[in-house]
Amino acid sequence: MNTILEGSSSSVEANSEGPTVIIGERINPTGRKRLAQALIAEDHGFVCELALSQVRAGAQVLDINVAALGVDEEQLLPRVVRQIAGVTGVPLCLDTLNTAALRAALEVVPGKPLVNSVSGEESSLGTVLPLVKDRGAAVIALTMDEAGIPQDAASRVRVAGKILERAARLGIQPADVLIDPLVMAAGADSNAGMVALQAINGIRREFGVSISLGASNVSFGLPDRHTLNQAFLAMAISQGANCVITDPAKLTGTIRAADLLRGRDEYAANYIASFRSARALSQ
Amino acid sequence: MNTILEGSSSSVEANSEGPTVIIGERINPTGRKRLAQALIAEDHGFVCELALSQVRAGAQVLDINVAALGVDEEQLLPRVVRQIAGVTGVPLCLDTLNTAALRAALEVVPGKPLVNSVSGEESSLGTVLPLVKDRGAAVIALTMDEAGIPQDAASRVRVAGKILERAARLGIQPADVLIDPLVMAAGADSNAGMVALQAINGIRREFGVSISLGASNVSFGLPDRHTLNQAFLAMAISQGANCVITDPAKLTGTIRAADLLRGRDEYAANYIASFRSARALSQ
Repeated sequence: MNTILEGSSSSVEANSEGPTVIIGERINPTGRKRLAQALIAEDHGFVCELALSQVRAGAQVLDINVAALGVDEEQLLPRVVRQIAGVTGVPLCLDTLNTAALRAALEVVPGKPLVNSVSGEESSLGTVLPLVKDRGAAVIALTMDEAGIPQDAASRVRVAGKILERAARLGIQPADVLIDPLVMAAGADSNAGMVALQAINGIRREFGVSISLGASNVSFGLPDRHTLNQAFLAMAISQGANCVITDPAKLTGTIRAADLLRGRDEYAANYIASFRSARALSQ
Repeated sequence: MNTILEGSSSSVEANSEGPTVIIGERINPTGRKRLAQALIAEDHGFVCELALSQVRAGAQVLDINVAALGVDEEQLLPRVVRQIAGVTGVPLCLDTLNTAALRAALEVVPGKPLVNSVSGEESSLGTVLPLVKDRGAAVIALTMDEAGIPQDAASRVRVAGKILERAARLGIQPADVLIDPLVMAAGADSNAGMVALQAINGIRREFGVSISLGASNVSFGLPDRHTLNQAFLAMAISQGANCVITDPAKLTGTIRAADLLRGRDEYAANYIASFRSARALSQ
Protein backbone atom coordinates (compact mmCIF):
# COMPACT_ATOMS: atom_id res chain seq x y z
CA MET A 1 0.00 0.00 0.00
CA ASN A 2 1.44 3.36 -1.06
CA THR A 3 0.88 6.50 0.97
CA ILE A 4 1.63 9.53 -1.18
CA LEU A 5 2.17 13.06 0.16
CA GLU A 6 2.76 16.08 -2.02
CA GLY A 7 4.32 19.48 -1.47
CA SER A 8 4.56 22.36 -3.91
CA SER A 9 7.76 21.02 -5.45
CA SER A 10 8.41 17.53 -4.08
CA SER A 11 6.39 14.46 -3.19
CA VAL A 12 7.14 11.43 -1.06
CA GLU A 13 5.83 7.90 -0.95
CA ALA A 14 5.65 5.65 2.11
CA ASN A 15 5.25 1.93 1.52
CA SER A 16 6.59 -1.34 2.84
CA GLU A 17 9.35 -1.70 0.24
CA GLY A 18 10.93 1.74 0.08
CA PRO A 19 12.83 3.85 2.57
CA THR A 20 11.28 5.16 5.77
CA VAL A 21 9.75 8.63 5.43
CA ILE A 22 11.24 11.17 7.84
CA ILE A 23 8.88 13.85 9.16
CA GLY A 24 10.76 16.71 10.85
CA GLU A 25 9.29 17.41 14.29
CA ARG A 26 11.00 20.63 15.26
CA ILE A 27 8.40 23.23 14.23
CA ASN A 28 6.60 22.75 17.52
CA PRO A 29 6.91 25.27 20.35
CA THR A 30 6.39 22.73 23.16
CA GLY A 31 9.57 22.96 25.22
CA ARG A 32 11.22 25.27 22.64
CA LYS A 33 11.18 28.79 24.09
CA ARG A 34 13.07 30.46 21.26
CA LEU A 35 10.65 29.04 18.68
CA ALA A 36 7.65 30.06 20.80
CA GLN A 37 8.97 33.64 20.86
CA ALA A 38 9.56 33.59 17.10
CA LEU A 39 6.03 32.34 16.47
CA ILE A 40 4.48 35.01 18.72
CA ALA A 41 6.60 37.73 17.07
CA GLU A 42 5.88 36.26 13.62
CA ASP A 43 9.62 36.06 13.02
CA HIS A 44 9.20 34.09 9.83
CA GLY A 45 12.92 34.15 9.09
CA PHE A 46 13.67 32.11 12.20
CA VAL A 47 10.86 29.65 11.56
CA CYS A 48 11.74 29.18 7.89
CA GLU A 49 15.39 28.60 8.71
CA LEU A 50 14.35 25.92 11.21
CA ALA A 51 12.28 24.34 8.43
CA LEU A 52 15.11 24.45 5.90
CA SER A 53 17.65 23.07 8.36
CA GLN A 54 15.46 20.02 8.89
CA VAL A 55 15.15 19.44 5.15
CA ARG A 56 18.93 19.70 4.80
CA ALA A 57 19.27 17.12 7.62
CA GLY A 58 17.03 14.62 5.81
CA ALA A 59 13.40 15.55 6.57
CA GLN A 60 11.10 14.77 3.63
CA VAL A 61 7.95 16.12 5.30
CA LEU A 62 7.69 18.87 7.94
CA ASP A 63 5.31 18.80 10.89
CA ILE A 64 3.95 22.30 11.60
CA ASN A 65 2.64 23.06 15.07
CA VAL A 66 2.30 26.71 16.10
CA ALA A 67 0.39 26.26 19.36
CA ALA A 68 2.48 28.56 21.53
CA LEU A 69 0.70 30.16 24.50
CA GLY A 70 -1.09 33.33 23.43
CA VAL A 71 -1.03 32.56 19.71
CA ASP A 72 -4.18 32.72 17.54
CA GLU A 73 -3.70 29.44 15.71
CA GLU A 74 -6.49 30.08 13.23
CA GLN A 75 -4.65 33.19 12.06
CA LEU A 76 -1.08 31.99 12.45
CA LEU A 77 -1.12 28.38 11.22
CA PRO A 78 -2.10 29.21 7.61
CA ARG A 79 0.46 32.02 7.49
CA VAL A 80 3.30 29.79 8.73
CA VAL A 81 2.19 26.96 6.44
CA ARG A 82 2.26 29.28 3.43
CA GLN A 83 5.72 30.58 4.34
CA ILE A 84 7.25 27.14 4.92
CA ALA A 85 5.61 25.67 1.83
CA GLY A 86 7.10 28.54 -0.14
CA VAL A 87 10.66 28.16 1.06
CA THR A 88 10.90 24.36 1.27
CA GLY A 89 8.49 22.89 -1.27
CA VAL A 90 8.17 19.66 0.75
CA PRO A 91 4.86 18.09 1.85
CA LEU A 92 3.59 19.45 5.17
CA CYS A 93 1.98 17.83 8.17
CA LEU A 94 -0.61 20.11 9.83
CA ASP A 95 -0.38 19.52 13.56
CA THR A 96 -3.16 21.17 15.54
CA LEU A 97 -6.02 20.40 17.90
CA ASN A 98 -7.84 23.52 16.70
CA THR A 99 -10.43 22.64 14.05
CA ALA A 100 -10.77 26.18 12.71
CA ALA A 101 -6.98 26.44 12.37
CA LEU A 102 -6.86 23.06 10.59
CA ARG A 103 -9.60 24.14 8.19
CA ALA A 104 -7.84 27.45 7.45
CA ALA A 105 -4.46 25.75 6.93
CA LEU A 106 -5.96 23.07 4.66
CA GLU A 107 -7.22 25.87 2.42
CA VAL A 108 -3.77 27.32 1.83
CA VAL A 109 -1.44 24.32 1.99
CA PRO A 110 -0.29 23.19 -1.47
CA GLY A 111 -0.29 19.60 -2.73
CA LYS A 112 -1.50 16.71 -0.63
CA PRO A 113 -0.80 17.36 3.05
CA LEU A 114 -0.87 15.12 6.09
CA VAL A 115 -3.18 15.98 9.00
CA ASN A 116 -1.87 15.33 12.53
CA SER A 117 -4.11 13.86 13.86
CA VAL A 118 -7.38 12.02 14.32
CA SER A 119 -8.06 9.62 17.20
CA GLY A 120 -10.69 6.95 17.81
CA GLU A 121 -12.77 9.39 19.87
CA GLU A 122 -16.15 10.18 18.29
CA SER A 123 -15.60 13.91 18.56
CA SER A 124 -12.31 13.61 16.68
CA LEU A 125 -13.59 11.18 14.04
CA GLY A 126 -16.62 13.35 13.38
CA THR A 127 -14.62 16.57 13.04
CA VAL A 128 -11.30 15.65 11.46
CA LEU A 129 -12.19 12.89 8.97
CA PRO A 130 -14.63 15.03 6.92
CA LEU A 131 -11.98 17.75 6.60
CA VAL A 132 -9.41 15.17 5.49
CA LYS A 133 -11.85 13.74 2.96
CA ASP A 134 -12.91 17.13 1.56
CA ARG A 135 -9.31 18.23 1.06
CA GLY A 136 -8.06 14.88 -0.27
CA ALA A 137 -5.43 14.82 2.46
CA ALA A 138 -3.84 11.94 4.38
CA VAL A 139 -4.16 11.66 8.16
CA ILE A 140 -2.26 10.29 11.14
CA ALA A 141 -4.56 8.18 13.33
CA LEU A 142 -3.73 7.77 17.02
CA THR A 143 -4.74 4.44 18.56
CA MET A 144 -6.69 5.91 21.48
CA ASP A 145 -10.36 6.56 22.14
CA GLU A 146 -12.72 7.79 24.87
CA ALA A 147 -11.23 5.23 27.27
CA GLY A 148 -7.72 6.63 26.76
CA ILE A 149 -4.70 4.82 25.39
CA PRO A 150 -5.13 1.04 25.63
CA GLN A 151 -2.55 -0.72 27.80
CA ASP A 152 -2.21 -3.67 25.45
CA ALA A 153 -1.26 -4.03 21.81
CA ALA A 154 -4.38 -5.96 20.72
CA SER A 155 -6.67 -3.14 21.86
CA ARG A 156 -4.57 -0.59 19.96
CA VAL A 157 -4.89 -2.73 16.85
CA ARG A 158 -8.67 -2.75 17.41
CA VAL A 159 -8.81 1.05 17.68
CA ALA A 160 -6.75 1.29 14.47
CA GLY A 161 -9.31 -0.98 12.78
CA LYS A 162 -12.18 1.19 13.96
CA ILE A 163 -10.58 4.39 12.61
CA LEU A 164 -9.78 2.73 9.28
CA GLU A 165 -13.37 1.58 9.00
CA ARG A 166 -14.76 5.03 9.76
CA ALA A 167 -12.38 6.57 7.24
CA ALA A 168 -13.43 4.03 4.60
CA ARG A 169 -17.11 4.86 5.16
CA LEU A 170 -16.31 8.46 4.20
CA GLY A 171 -14.38 7.32 1.15
CA ILE A 172 -10.88 7.86 2.60
CA GLN A 173 -8.56 5.12 1.28
CA PRO A 174 -6.59 3.00 3.81
CA ALA A 175 -3.41 4.22 2.06
CA ASP A 176 -4.25 7.71 3.30
CA VAL A 177 -4.51 6.70 6.96
CA LEU A 178 -1.17 6.37 8.79
CA ILE A 179 -1.58 4.61 12.11
CA ASP A 180 0.41 5.90 15.08
CA PRO A 181 0.48 3.17 17.76
CA LEU A 182 1.47 5.68 20.49
CA VAL A 183 4.71 4.98 22.24
CA MET A 184 4.69 5.76 25.97
CA ALA A 185 7.71 6.37 28.22
CA ALA A 186 9.61 3.16 29.02
CA GLY A 187 10.93 4.79 32.19
CA ALA A 188 7.40 4.98 33.61
CA ASP A 189 6.27 1.57 32.30
CA SER A 190 8.96 -0.89 31.29
CA ASN A 191 6.47 -2.65 28.98
CA ALA A 192 5.80 0.54 27.00
CA GLY A 193 8.31 -0.19 24.23
CA MET A 194 7.21 -3.81 23.87
CA VAL A 195 3.52 -2.91 23.65
CA ALA A 196 4.22 -0.32 20.95
CA LEU A 197 6.36 -2.77 18.96
CA GLN A 198 3.70 -5.47 19.23
CA ALA A 199 1.08 -2.97 18.10
CA ILE A 200 3.22 -2.03 15.07
CA ASN A 201 3.61 -5.68 14.18
CA GLY A 202 -0.11 -6.36 14.64
CA ILE A 203 -1.24 -3.34 12.60
CA ARG A 204 1.18 -4.21 9.81
CA ARG A 205 -0.10 -7.79 9.63
CA GLU A 206 -3.76 -7.06 10.03
CA PHE A 207 -4.20 -3.98 7.83
CA GLY A 208 -0.96 -3.52 5.84
CA VAL A 209 -1.26 0.26 6.17
CA SER A 210 1.46 2.84 6.75
CA ILE A 211 2.63 3.18 10.35
CA SER A 212 3.95 6.45 11.70
CA LEU A 213 5.46 7.07 15.09
CA GLY A 214 7.15 9.60 17.26
CA ALA A 215 10.47 8.35 18.53
CA SER A 216 11.44 10.52 21.43
CA ASN A 217 8.62 9.91 23.92
CA VAL A 218 9.86 6.39 24.68
CA SER A 219 13.03 7.67 26.35
CA PHE A 220 11.41 10.38 28.49
CA GLY A 221 12.86 10.46 32.01
CA LEU A 222 15.68 7.99 31.25
CA PRO A 223 19.41 8.66 30.84
CA ASP A 224 21.18 8.52 27.47
CA ARG A 225 17.94 9.20 25.61
CA HIS A 226 19.67 9.21 22.23
CA THR A 227 20.77 5.55 22.49
CA LEU A 228 17.24 4.54 23.50
CA ASN A 229 15.67 6.55 20.68
CA GLN A 230 18.08 4.99 18.18
CA ALA A 231 17.34 1.46 19.39
CA PHE A 232 13.61 2.08 19.41
CA LEU A 233 13.54 3.47 15.87
CA ALA A 234 15.57 0.57 14.50
CA MET A 235 13.27 -1.93 16.25
CA ALA A 236 10.13 -0.13 15.11
CA ILE A 237 11.33 -0.10 11.50
CA SER A 238 12.24 -3.77 11.89
CA GLN A 239 8.63 -4.46 12.96
CA GLY A 240 7.09 -2.48 10.12
CA ALA A 241 6.97 1.26 10.83
CA ASN A 242 7.53 3.28 7.64
CA CYS A 243 7.16 6.91 8.80
CA VAL A 244 8.94 8.56 11.71
CA ILE A 245 8.29 11.96 13.27
CA THR A 246 11.66 12.95 14.68
CA ASP A 247 14.56 15.37 14.78
CA PRO A 248 16.31 14.55 11.48
CA ALA A 249 19.63 16.04 12.57
CA LYS A 250 19.81 13.41 15.30
CA LEU A 251 18.26 10.31 13.79
CA THR A 252 18.49 10.28 10.00
CA GLY A 253 21.64 8.11 10.16
CA THR A 254 19.93 5.46 12.28
CA ILE A 255 16.82 5.48 10.10
CA ARG A 256 18.83 5.05 6.89
CA ALA A 257 20.89 2.31 8.59
CA ALA A 258 17.69 0.47 9.51
CA ASP A 259 16.38 0.85 5.93
CA LEU A 260 19.58 -0.68 4.57
CA LEU A 261 19.43 -3.52 7.09
CA ARG A 262 15.84 -4.26 6.08
CA GLY A 263 16.85 -4.53 2.45
CA ARG A 264 15.22 -1.26 1.39
CA ASP A 265 18.33 0.50 0.13
CA GLU A 266 19.96 -0.96 -2.96
CA TYR A 267 23.76 -0.57 -3.02
CA ALA A 268 23.45 1.25 0.33
CA ALA A 269 22.98 4.37 -1.78
CA ASN A 270 20.67 6.26 0.59
CA TYR A 271 22.75 5.30 3.62
CA ILE A 272 25.96 6.58 2.06
CA ALA A 273 24.30 9.74 0.69
CA SER A 274 22.86 10.50 4.12
CA PHE A 275 26.28 10.00 5.74
CA ARG A 276 27.96 12.33 3.23
CA SER A 277 25.30 14.95 3.63
CA ALA A 278 25.58 14.86 7.45
CA ARG A 279 29.36 15.15 7.20
CA ALA A 280 29.11 18.11 4.84
CA LEU A 281 26.66 19.85 7.21
CA SER A 282 28.96 19.36 10.19
CA GLN A 283 31.96 20.89 8.41
CA MET B 1 14.35 -22.68 26.28
CA ASN B 2 17.17 -21.78 28.70
CA THR B 3 20.80 -21.84 27.62
CA ILE B 4 23.01 -21.91 30.70
CA LEU B 5 26.74 -21.16 30.71
CA GLU B 6 28.95 -21.39 33.77
CA GLY B 7 32.27 -19.91 34.77
CA SER B 8 34.28 -20.55 37.91
CA SER B 9 32.38 -17.92 39.87
CA SER B 10 29.44 -16.73 37.78
CA SER B 11 26.88 -18.23 35.45
CA VAL B 12 24.60 -16.73 32.85
CA GLU B 13 21.33 -17.75 31.28
CA ALA B 14 20.11 -16.90 27.79
CA ASN B 15 16.41 -17.28 27.08
CA SER B 16 13.62 -15.45 25.31
CA GLU B 17 12.37 -13.60 28.39
CA GLY B 18 15.53 -12.32 30.04
CA PRO B 19 18.20 -9.85 29.00
CA THR B 20 20.47 -10.43 26.02
CA VAL B 21 23.74 -12.16 26.90
CA ILE B 22 26.81 -10.13 25.95
CA ILE B 23 29.88 -12.10 24.83
CA GLY B 24 33.02 -9.93 24.74
CA GLU B 25 34.80 -10.32 21.38
CA ARG B 26 38.08 -8.56 22.00
CA ILE B 27 40.36 -11.47 22.93
CA ASN B 28 40.97 -12.16 19.25
CA PRO B 29 44.21 -11.14 17.54
CA THR B 30 42.64 -10.65 14.09
CA GLY B 31 43.34 -7.02 13.26
CA ARG B 32 44.67 -6.33 16.77
CA LYS B 33 48.45 -6.08 16.52
CA ARG B 34 49.10 -5.22 20.16
CA LEU B 35 47.11 -8.25 21.32
CA ALA B 36 48.85 -10.51 18.81
CA GLN B 37 52.21 -9.41 20.23
CA ALA B 38 51.02 -9.99 23.79
CA LEU B 39 49.80 -13.48 22.92
CA ILE B 40 53.09 -14.41 21.22
CA ALA B 41 55.08 -13.02 24.16
CA GLU B 42 52.69 -14.67 26.63
CA ASP B 43 52.14 -11.28 28.24
CA HIS B 44 49.31 -12.56 30.41
CA GLY B 45 49.00 -9.24 32.22
CA PHE B 46 47.95 -7.49 29.03
CA VAL B 47 45.54 -10.25 28.02
CA CYS B 48 43.96 -10.49 31.46
CA GLU B 49 43.48 -6.73 31.65
CA LEU B 50 41.73 -6.84 28.27
CA ALA B 51 39.50 -9.59 29.67
CA LEU B 52 38.71 -7.65 32.84
CA SER B 53 38.01 -4.42 30.99
CA GLN B 54 35.36 -6.21 28.91
CA VAL B 55 33.70 -7.60 32.04
CA ARG B 56 33.66 -4.11 33.56
CA ALA B 57 32.04 -2.83 30.35
CA GLY B 58 29.23 -5.38 30.55
CA ALA B 59 30.51 -8.66 29.05
CA GLN B 60 28.99 -11.70 30.78
CA VAL B 61 30.92 -14.26 28.73
CA LEU B 62 34.35 -13.84 27.09
CA ASP B 63 35.29 -15.20 23.69
CA ILE B 64 38.89 -16.47 23.68
CA ASN B 65 40.72 -16.70 20.37
CA VAL B 66 44.53 -16.88 20.44
CA ALA B 67 45.17 -17.68 16.76
CA ALA B 68 47.90 -15.15 16.12
CA LEU B 69 50.38 -16.03 13.39
CA GLY B 70 53.17 -18.23 14.79
CA VAL B 71 51.32 -19.26 17.91
CA ASP B 72 50.99 -22.91 18.98
CA GLU B 73 47.29 -22.86 19.78
CA GLU B 74 47.27 -26.28 21.39
CA GLN B 75 49.80 -25.03 23.95
CA LEU B 76 48.61 -21.45 24.30
CA LEU B 77 44.80 -21.70 24.31
CA PRO B 78 44.55 -23.76 27.53
CA ARG B 79 47.08 -21.49 29.26
CA VAL B 80 45.19 -18.31 28.33
CA VAL B 81 41.86 -19.92 29.23
CA ARG B 82 43.16 -20.87 32.67
CA GLN B 83 44.51 -17.36 33.26
CA ILE B 84 41.35 -15.57 32.18
CA ALA B 85 39.09 -18.00 34.02
CA GLY B 86 41.18 -17.33 37.12
CA VAL B 87 41.00 -13.52 37.00
CA THR B 88 37.42 -13.06 35.74
CA GLY B 89 35.39 -16.06 36.87
CA VAL B 90 32.93 -15.60 33.98
CA PRO B 91 31.91 -18.34 31.51
CA LEU B 92 34.26 -18.62 28.54
CA CYS B 93 33.69 -19.17 24.84
CA LEU B 94 36.48 -21.23 23.23
CA ASP B 95 37.03 -19.84 19.75
CA THR B 96 39.32 -21.99 17.62
CA LEU B 97 39.43 -23.97 14.38
CA ASN B 98 42.14 -26.22 15.87
CA THR B 99 40.63 -29.44 17.22
CA ALA B 100 43.60 -30.33 19.41
CA ALA B 101 43.57 -26.85 20.93
CA LEU B 102 39.82 -27.10 21.55
CA ARG B 103 40.26 -30.49 23.24
CA ALA B 104 43.09 -29.20 25.42
CA ALA B 105 41.17 -26.06 26.39
CA LEU B 106 38.00 -28.02 27.19
CA GLU B 107 40.06 -30.04 29.69
CA VAL B 108 41.12 -27.00 31.71
CA VAL B 109 38.20 -24.59 31.37
CA PRO B 110 36.02 -24.48 34.49
CA GLY B 111 32.24 -24.72 34.56
CA LYS B 112 30.17 -25.07 31.41
CA PRO B 113 31.84 -23.33 28.50
CA LEU B 114 30.63 -22.35 25.06
CA VAL B 115 32.42 -23.72 21.97
CA ASN B 116 32.81 -21.38 18.98
CA SER B 117 31.93 -23.04 16.64
CA VAL B 118 30.44 -25.95 14.71
CA SER B 119 29.05 -25.63 11.17
CA GLY B 120 26.82 -27.81 9.02
CA GLU B 121 29.87 -29.30 7.27
CA GLU B 122 30.29 -33.02 7.93
CA SER B 123 33.91 -32.59 8.98
CA SER B 124 32.91 -30.02 11.57
CA LEU B 125 29.85 -31.91 12.84
CA GLY B 126 31.88 -35.09 13.19
CA THR B 127 34.73 -33.44 15.07
CA VAL B 128 33.22 -30.71 17.20
CA LEU B 129 29.90 -32.15 18.36
CA PRO B 130 31.44 -35.22 20.13
CA LEU B 131 33.82 -32.92 22.04
CA VAL B 132 30.90 -30.68 23.04
CA LYS B 133 28.88 -33.71 24.16
CA ASP B 134 31.75 -35.29 26.13
CA ARG B 135 32.49 -32.06 27.98
CA GLY B 136 28.82 -31.12 28.56
CA ALA B 137 29.46 -27.78 26.86
CA ALA B 138 27.23 -25.56 24.75
CA VAL B 139 28.10 -24.72 21.15
CA ILE B 140 27.61 -21.94 18.61
CA ALA B 141 26.37 -23.38 15.30
CA LEU B 142 27.04 -21.46 12.09
CA THR B 143 24.38 -21.80 9.39
CA MET B 144 26.74 -22.84 6.61
CA ASP B 145 27.73 -26.16 5.10
CA GLU B 146 29.83 -27.67 2.28
CA ALA B 147 28.02 -25.41 -0.21
CA GLY B 148 29.06 -22.30 1.74
CA ILE B 149 26.78 -19.73 3.34
CA PRO B 150 23.28 -19.88 1.85
CA GLN B 151 22.13 -16.68 0.15
CA ASP B 152 18.60 -16.95 1.49
CA ALA B 153 17.12 -17.11 4.96
CA ALA B 154 15.10 -20.30 4.44
CA SER B 155 18.23 -22.28 3.56
CA ARG B 156 20.00 -20.98 6.67
CA VAL B 157 17.02 -22.12 8.75
CA ARG B 158 17.35 -25.55 7.10
CA VAL B 159 21.07 -25.77 7.95
CA ALA B 160 20.23 -24.79 11.54
CA GLY B 161 17.70 -27.62 11.63
CA LYS B 162 20.26 -30.09 10.35
CA ILE B 163 22.82 -29.15 13.01
CA LEU B 164 20.19 -29.29 15.77
CA GLU B 165 19.17 -32.76 14.59
CA ARG B 166 22.77 -34.01 14.51
CA ALA B 167 23.38 -32.58 17.97
CA ALA B 168 20.21 -34.23 19.30
CA ARG B 169 21.34 -37.61 17.93
CA LEU B 170 24.45 -37.32 20.10
CA GLY B 171 22.36 -36.33 23.11
CA ILE B 172 23.13 -32.60 23.01
CA GLN B 173 20.03 -30.66 24.07
CA PRO B 174 18.68 -27.93 21.75
CA ALA B 175 19.15 -25.51 24.65
CA ASP B 176 22.90 -26.09 24.33
CA VAL B 177 23.04 -25.17 20.63
CA LEU B 178 23.13 -21.43 19.88
CA ILE B 179 22.46 -20.75 16.22
CA ASP B 180 24.50 -18.00 14.53
CA PRO B 181 22.69 -16.99 11.31
CA LEU B 182 25.85 -15.36 9.88
CA VAL B 183 25.57 -11.71 9.08
CA MET B 184 27.43 -10.65 5.93
CA ALA B 185 28.54 -7.14 4.97
CA ALA B 186 25.63 -4.93 3.86
CA GLY B 187 28.08 -2.80 1.89
CA ALA B 188 28.85 -5.76 -0.40
CA ASP B 189 25.26 -7.03 -0.58
CA SER B 190 22.48 -4.68 0.40
CA ASN B 191 20.23 -7.64 1.22
CA ALA B 192 22.71 -9.03 3.76
CA GLY B 193 21.06 -7.45 6.81
CA MET B 194 17.57 -8.42 5.73
CA VAL B 195 18.53 -12.06 5.07
CA ALA B 196 20.15 -12.33 8.51
CA LEU B 197 17.13 -10.76 10.22
CA GLN B 198 14.75 -13.07 8.36
CA ALA B 199 16.92 -16.04 9.35
CA ILE B 200 16.81 -14.96 13.02
CA ASN B 201 13.03 -14.69 12.85
CA GLY B 202 12.69 -18.05 11.10
CA ILE B 203 15.01 -19.89 13.51
CA ARG B 204 13.24 -18.39 16.51
CA ARG B 205 9.83 -19.48 15.22
CA GLU B 206 10.83 -22.89 13.97
CA PHE B 207 13.12 -24.11 16.75
CA GLY B 208 12.81 -21.66 19.67
CA VAL B 209 16.53 -22.02 20.40
CA SER B 210 19.03 -19.38 21.46
CA ILE B 211 20.37 -17.19 18.67
CA SER B 212 23.83 -15.68 18.83
CA LEU B 213 25.37 -13.25 16.40
CA GLY B 214 28.36 -11.10 15.71
CA ALA B 215 27.39 -7.50 15.16
CA SER B 216 30.28 -5.82 13.49
CA ASN B 217 30.58 -7.72 10.20
CA VAL B 218 27.40 -6.15 8.84
CA SER B 219 28.99 -2.69 8.66
CA PHE B 220 32.28 -3.73 7.07
CA GLY B 221 33.35 -1.28 4.35
CA LEU B 222 30.64 1.29 5.13
CA PRO B 223 30.98 4.68 6.82
CA ASP B 224 29.75 5.35 10.37
CA ARG B 225 29.98 1.68 11.29
CA HIS B 226 28.89 2.32 14.86
CA THR B 227 25.43 3.62 13.85
CA LEU B 228 24.93 0.61 11.56
CA ASN B 229 26.07 -1.82 14.25
CA GLN B 230 23.73 -0.21 16.77
CA ALA B 231 20.76 -0.38 14.40
CA PHE B 232 21.53 -3.97 13.45
CA LEU B 233 21.81 -5.16 17.04
CA ALA B 234 18.54 -3.50 18.02
CA MET B 235 16.78 -5.03 15.01
CA ALA B 236 18.32 -8.47 15.62
CA ILE B 237 17.18 -8.40 19.25
CA SER B 238 13.76 -7.26 18.07
CA GLN B 239 13.60 -10.33 15.81
CA GLY B 240 14.72 -12.76 18.52
CA ALA B 241 18.50 -12.82 18.96
CA ASN B 242 19.42 -13.34 22.63
CA CYS B 243 23.25 -13.52 22.56
CA VAL B 244 25.60 -11.02 20.96
CA ILE B 245 29.35 -11.32 20.38
CA THR B 246 30.54 -7.73 20.40
CA ASP B 247 32.75 -5.05 21.93
CA PRO B 248 30.90 -4.37 25.18
CA ALA B 249 32.49 -0.94 25.64
CA LYS B 250 30.79 0.19 22.45
CA LEU B 251 27.47 -1.61 22.40
CA THR B 252 26.27 -2.54 25.90
CA GLY B 253 24.11 0.63 26.04
CA THR B 254 22.31 -0.24 22.81
CA ILE B 255 21.81 -3.87 23.87
CA ARG B 256 20.35 -2.90 27.25
CA ALA B 257 18.15 -0.29 25.50
CA ALA B 258 16.83 -2.99 23.15
CA ASP B 259 16.17 -5.31 26.10
CA LEU B 260 14.16 -2.61 27.84
CA LEU B 261 12.21 -1.87 24.66
CA ARG B 262 11.37 -5.56 24.28
CA GLY B 263 9.97 -5.67 27.79
CA ARG B 264 12.87 -7.69 29.24
CA ASP B 265 14.01 -5.18 31.85
CA GLU B 266 11.62 -4.50 34.69
CA TYR B 267 11.77 -0.91 36.00
CA ALA B 268 14.54 -0.28 33.40
CA ALA B 269 16.89 -1.51 36.14
CA ASN B 270 19.52 -3.09 33.86
CA TYR B 271 19.43 -0.16 31.45
CA ILE B 272 20.01 2.38 34.21
CA ALA B 273 22.69 0.24 35.91
CA SER B 274 24.52 -0.14 32.61
CA PHE B 275 24.37 3.62 32.01
CA ARG B 276 25.74 4.36 35.49
CA SER B 277 28.48 1.82 35.11
CA ALA B 278 29.55 3.23 31.73
CA ARG B 279 29.57 6.76 33.18
CA ALA B 280 31.67 5.67 36.13
CA LEU B 281 34.16 3.96 33.78
CA SER B 282 34.48 7.07 31.63
CA GLN B 283 35.27 9.31 34.60
